[in-house]
Amino acid sequence: MPQISKRDVLVPLDVPRRMKRTYVHNYLAATRQTGNLFLFAGDQKIEHLNQDFYGEGISQDCAHPRHLFEIASRARIGVFATQLGNIARHAHDYTNVNYVVKLNSKTNLVKSEQAEPLSLELNTVKEVAKFRDDSSLNIVGVGYTVYLGSEHEAKMLRQAARAMHEAHQHGLLGIVWMYPRGKAVPNEHDANIIAGAAGVGVCLGADFIKVNPPEKSQDLAQATLAAGNAGVICSGGKRVDEDEFLTQLQAQLATGTKGCATGRNIHQKSLSEAIAFCEKIAKLVLDAS
Amino acid sequence: MPQISKRDVLVPLDVPRRMKRTYVHNYLAATRQTGNLFLFAGDQKIEHLNQDFYGEGISQDCAHPRHLFEIASRARIGVFATQLGNIARHAHDYTNVNYVVKLNSKTNLVKSEQAEPLSLELNTVKEVAKFRDDSSLNIVGVGYTVYLGSEHEAKMLRQAARAMHEAHQHGLLGIVWMYPRGKAVPNEHDANIIAGAAGVGVCLGADFIKVNPPEKSQDLAQATLAAGNAGVICSGGKRVDEDEFLTQLQAQLATGTKGCATGRNIHQKSLSEAIAFCEKIAKLVLDAS
Amino acid sequence: MPQISKRDVLVPLDVPRRMKRTYVHNYLAATRQTGNLFLFAGDQKIEHLNQDFYGEGISQDCAHPRHLFEIASRARIGVFATQLGNIARHAHDYTNVNYVVKLNSKTNLVKSEQAEPLSLELNTVKEVAKFRDDSSLNIVGVGYTVYLGSEHEAKMLRQAARAMHEAHQHGLLGIVWMYPRGKAVPNEHDANIIAGAAGVGVCLGADFIKVNPPEKSQDLAQATLAAGNAGVICSGGKRVDEDEFLTQLQAQLATGTKGCATGRNIHQKSLSEAIAFCEKIAKLVLDAS
Amino acid sequence: MPQISKRDVLVPLDVPRRMKRTYVHNYLAATRQTGNLFLFAGDQKIEHLNQDFYGEGISQDCAHPRHLFEIASRARIGVFATQLGNIARHAHDYTNVNYVVKLNSKTNLVKSEQAEPLSLELNTVKEVAKFRDDSSLNIVGVGYTVYLGSEHEAKMLRQAARAMHEAHQHGLLGIVWMYPRGKAVPNEHDANIIAGAAGVGVCLGADFIKVNPPEKSQDLAQATLAAGNAGVICSGGKRVDEDEFLTQLQAQLATGTKGCATGRNIHQKSLSEAIAFCEKIAKLVLDAS
Amino acid sequence: MPQISKRDVLVPLDVPRRMKRTYVHNYLAATRQTGNLFLFAGDQKIEHLNQDFYGEGISQDCAHPRHLFEIASRARIGVFATQLGNIARHAHDYTNVNYVVKLNSKTNLVKSEQAEPLSLELNTVKEVAKFRDDSSLNIVGVGYTVYLGSEHEAKMLRQAARAMHEAHQHGLLGIVWMYPRGKAVPNEHDANIIAGAAGVGVCLGADFIKVNPPEKSQDLAQATLAAGNAGVICSGGKRVDEDEFLTQLQAQLATGTKGCATGRNIHQKSLSEAIAFCEKIAKLVLDAS
Repeated sequence: MPQISKRDVLVPLDVPRRMKRTYVHNYLAATRQTGNLFLFAGDQKIEHLNQDFYGEGISQDCAHPRHLFEIASRARIGVFATQLGNIARHAHDYTNVNYVVKLNSKTNLVKSEQAEPLSLELNTVKEVAKFRDDSSLNIVGVGYTVYLGSEHEAKMLRQAARAMHEAHQHGLLGIVWMYPRGKAVPNEHDANIIAGAAGVGVCLGADFIKVNPPEKSQDLAQATLAAGNAGVICSGGKRVDEDEFLTQLQAQLATGTKGCATGRNIHQKSLSEAIAFCEKIAKLVLDAS
Repeated sequence: MPQISKRDVLVPLDVPRRMKRTYVHNYLAATRQTGNLFLFAGDQKIEHLNQDFYGEGISQDCAHPRHLFEIASRARIGVFATQLGNIARHAHDYTNVNYVVKLNSKTNLVKSEQAEPLSLELNTVKEVAKFRDDSSLNIVGVGYTVYLGSEHEAKMLRQAARAMHEAHQHGLLGIVWMYPRGKAVPNEHDANIIAGAAGVGVCLGADFIKVNPPEKSQDLAQATLAAGNAGVICSGGKRVDEDEFLTQLQAQLATGTKGCATGRNIHQKSLSEAIAFCEKIAKLVLDAS
Repeated sequence: MPQISKRDVLVPLDVPRRMKRTYVHNYLAATRQTGNLFLFAGDQKIEHLNQDFYGEGISQDCAHPRHLFEIASRARIGVFATQLGNIARHAHDYTNVNYVVKLNSKTNLVKSEQAEPLSLELNTVKEVAKFRDDSSLNIVGVGYTVYLGSEHEAKMLRQAARAMHEAHQHGLLGIVWMYPRGKAVPNEHDANIIAGAAGVGVCLGADFIKVNPPEKSQDLAQATLAAGNAGVICSGGKRVDEDEFLTQLQAQLATGTKGCATGRNIHQKSLSEAIAFCEKIAKLVLDAS
Repeated sequence: MPQISKRDVLVPLDVPRRMKRTYVHNYLAATRQTGNLFLFAGDQKIEHLNQDFYGEGISQDCAHPRHLFEIASRARIGVFATQLGNIARHAHDYTNVNYVVKLNSKTNLVKSEQAEPLSLELNTVKEVAKFRDDSSLNIVGVGYTVYLGSEHEAKMLRQAARAMHEAHQHGLLGIVWMYPRGKAVPNEHDANIIAGAAGVGVCLGADFIKVNPPEKSQDLAQATLAAGNAGVICSGGKRVDEDEFLTQLQAQLATGTKGCATGRNIHQKSLSEAIAFCEKIAKLVLDAS
Repeated sequence: MPQISKRDVLVPLDVPRRMKRTYVHNYLAATRQTGNLFLFAGDQKIEHLNQDFYGEGISQDCAHPRHLFEIASRARIGVFATQLGNIARHAHDYTNVNYVVKLNSKTNLVKSEQAEPLSLELNTVKEVAKFRDDSSLNIVGVGYTVYLGSEHEAKMLRQAARAMHEAHQHGLLGIVWMYPRGKAVPNEHDANIIAGAAGVGVCLGADFIKVNPPEKSQDLAQATLAAGNAGVICSGGKRVDEDEFLTQLQAQLATGTKGCATGRNIHQKSLSEAIAFCEKIAKLVLDAS
């Protein structure tokens, strides 16, 4: 990607005047001066319990959360997203990382068949902003997951909209994870619903919108348009072959997505492999022009 | 419509003295000095996901939210209503528009058969008022949808009443979308229920009340009386033939409605067609005498 | 009734010292210096939608909410009770009226068979007190409906107790509508339950308690005792013959009730008939000795 | 009981320094310098509607709430417990009484078979403290009922713990009514469950814990130990023969209970009989040594 | 354990600068300068009612809550965890104890088969911090139980995350009790789920994480890694033979756990036996190297 400068950053209009510099700074840092976002996702310790971090085919490095921070610190990523508590206990030696605080998370114990999905804010944006100031960490944004189509949708839409707005009040980027899910959603990978979810994301005020990609990557074009000038980024999903991953990512980027959000495909590898694979992703997301 | 002046504006009694000028200013701007409201509705990106913006019979212009702002900026409308987040990310080049911030929205994924309809505030009026001041945009009012007859009615009535009252506290117009819906409502187009909904709207303190029109436009007369000195405006519904639309609108206005709230019939057209059609609507709503 | 003076007013002990004059003033105004309350009930636009205001046997005057304010302004009533929004949009020319702001209301769309009754505060007492100061209207009290015996009883008891207490904090009268309703209430007109409801009303701190009368008016005596020094007033119910109405009212007053709360029997008439009928009620409630 | 002095009062450690004198004063007043509590219970107007106050075998004096205040004022009791609203409207001539404000109450209309029991705070402790200051009444404590074992237990435990803590913040005594109830409680009079309830009471921070006695009074010993240095007091239940009542009370006191909480057995009598019977209770609770 | 000093304490990054000394002081006090935590658990009076304190095989000393405080004061433990109310009423003579305030608790009356487990905050951390200051007690931390996998999980995750964060804001340690429970959890002792629960604990920001041990102690290794630099401590469960207990504890410690949380195995003994057994535990947890 061509390098962008301060003047190229579109600052959302709910960022107050005194926070515009902070927002621009965070935006440039998060996107490494490209406008594209390489998000390293590390919120699965709540979302998936320990199954993404331990077991067959997973590097033993991955058993300890330090692994995530090591990767985040050494690899050429944009931001590392995880929960406030995880950061507060492990970031001491990883102060060069750009952090995104994931505000809400649920476990995968209760399945959608048992109860409609619900994930509520663990921390408020105000707490995150204070944490940023107390810790002097490079906290550049916040993330929130919305289970669109859940019977609890109203609660999550409300928390998401407020989180995005309050993030801007503090000069932080706002990112939503838009996941259609629940009895009312027969197919989470339907391209129309994903485009709709992207459109909801921008109406919530998000700067970047993470979606699960539809079955065919090219169907993402509808979503990237629906998101307006917010950037769509695709989640990486479960671990797949590296080449397959990179081919898919390239196809996604060709439809206008503005980066990627990858977790397991990175952190289930050993540290050195993870760093190397991040570099391949970075080439596509951050270097391609 | 004959032009009205400051003295003709009925200021609700819960507008504090220091906000009366602001309210009058907003009222005149929103109604283009006529007392009638031409509301361009753009909150469907959450309400209907992407299905109103993409697909057969819909202009390709419509796929990107910029289209809504282009229309709002160039056509002779009164106000453009959409969510705060959408405005915050797209209004930079559209500062001439009068905005109404739609406070609540739900998707159409969960149907009334599955769960009683519920839509909760995404942003508070206080946030909107601060956004107005931070952004210097012409934010002239707020909107809130009430699903009357839902088992969750009490929550929405409460948020609506507070939103209308707080809007007035900040000199903003308050508009309610009154939609009878849920198991308890066998026919959403029943003229008596629509009149009842209009009456509820004014008791919530709304200045304008958006309703779905009954099957026969002339049956609206009951509703326009029930609304007292609040103005009833009819939603446009799904896209229909232009002449049919304008004939219906004229019939509605003849019963005493004070404008219209139209979305799909405008924005599913190409930009130039949309602007031209807005002009036809404006002639009926804003020029007729 | 013999005229009462300031010294005769029993001021509840939760009225702060600085608000005692205001409370006494409001009490005397509301009861027209008699201690009895003639409450003109105008909250049905939410409670009953438009069916009390339009249709066969209802004066055409009644279709517009202005009718309620005209009656309230010209007839010899004590107070007019309706929602804040309705007052805010219509009271401009009716500043001589003593208003009671009805804090909560629900529609009649969802029947008790479908879901247990629930009605929540639309506005807080604090908002009402500010509205009084902003508008300079004679707002003398607040009203709240409790559906005793509903599975949601706890929520309404809590809001009612707080509303009564906060009303007193601002020198306003507190009135509760005590309506036993829901699956647990086989007969809403049972004299024992009505007496119980009256007793609950005074424990919530209400100054006046509106109940539906039991089948035999004389059975009200139990309730008027149970209410202690709070005044019981009976709702008027659906429109009946004038003489029948007045005979019933007289029988109620004979048991110790302290007034009446009448809506449909007044406002479904034409303006002149309504005023004339109010005068007949006033003679019983306010003049008899 | 031997008279106790200021130095004998164990002040809970969450009473702030500046409120210790007030707490000690209230404790001594409530226990009449004995450490034992004779609580006259008058919260049944909500809990049991009018059935405890009117009907066969109940003195006609009891029909009016004034009766409760007359007894409280003239008999040798420790404290009189009723709702804030009842006090606010009736205590004008009864300023010598020590009041306990019962914070929550529910009616008996919805039975446990229909819905799990739930009773929520009508007034906050902060409101009670302000009421004390505004009214200059001797308000010495607050009371809260917990239905242990209800599916709504969590809500009530939370309100109770906060009420006890906030009571101490204002120098007030905290009393809990611990009533195991709901589908999960097969026998409300099981001695083990009652002891458990007493133990919960002290963990909530209560100074006195009201329980329903187990079938055999001697089984209370477990509960009085479980309560630690909080005092267990037994509710009186429905009206029984005077001698039977006093014999039971004596047996309860012998197990280490620190008083009694009696309502119907007192107030269903005429005023003079009630005062006389209170004196007999007082002899056991306050005079015995 | 080798003694640690101030410099060895890892201070979570959400501890504000001015509270770092307090946190370090509390950490060293709680772990007796070892980094290992011997938590004496005394919150069962709510969790298990009276059944852990009275009956066959339980010392009669245990019937009175004083017993817990005597042990805590005289034995070589790290911290004693119980509810604020219990501390407020019993800690007067036990000021040498390091207290952990258990913020939430539920009874065992409603079983998971009847309703999904839910336990809510009884007191806020802010209240605890004020209590610390008012009482001058050595309150060093707070505890919160999360029933992971309950349908109410979202509410508890939210309260837990906030409690941990606010604890740090006040220089207090944060401890979570992570208990997978509910219909969605077929086996609470599954080693993978326990490891997952430990991982959730650190993402909530906890400093120590209490889990129920899996069937084979050696399977804990996964959990101690998943917890990162937070310390895992195992609950003691029901009373077992002393040697069996100590053997298990040693096996647990060998996997990397950082202490233990023991209640019944201590307090169901007589005071002298309890103190002696604590000493044996202390040797393993605090002295071994």
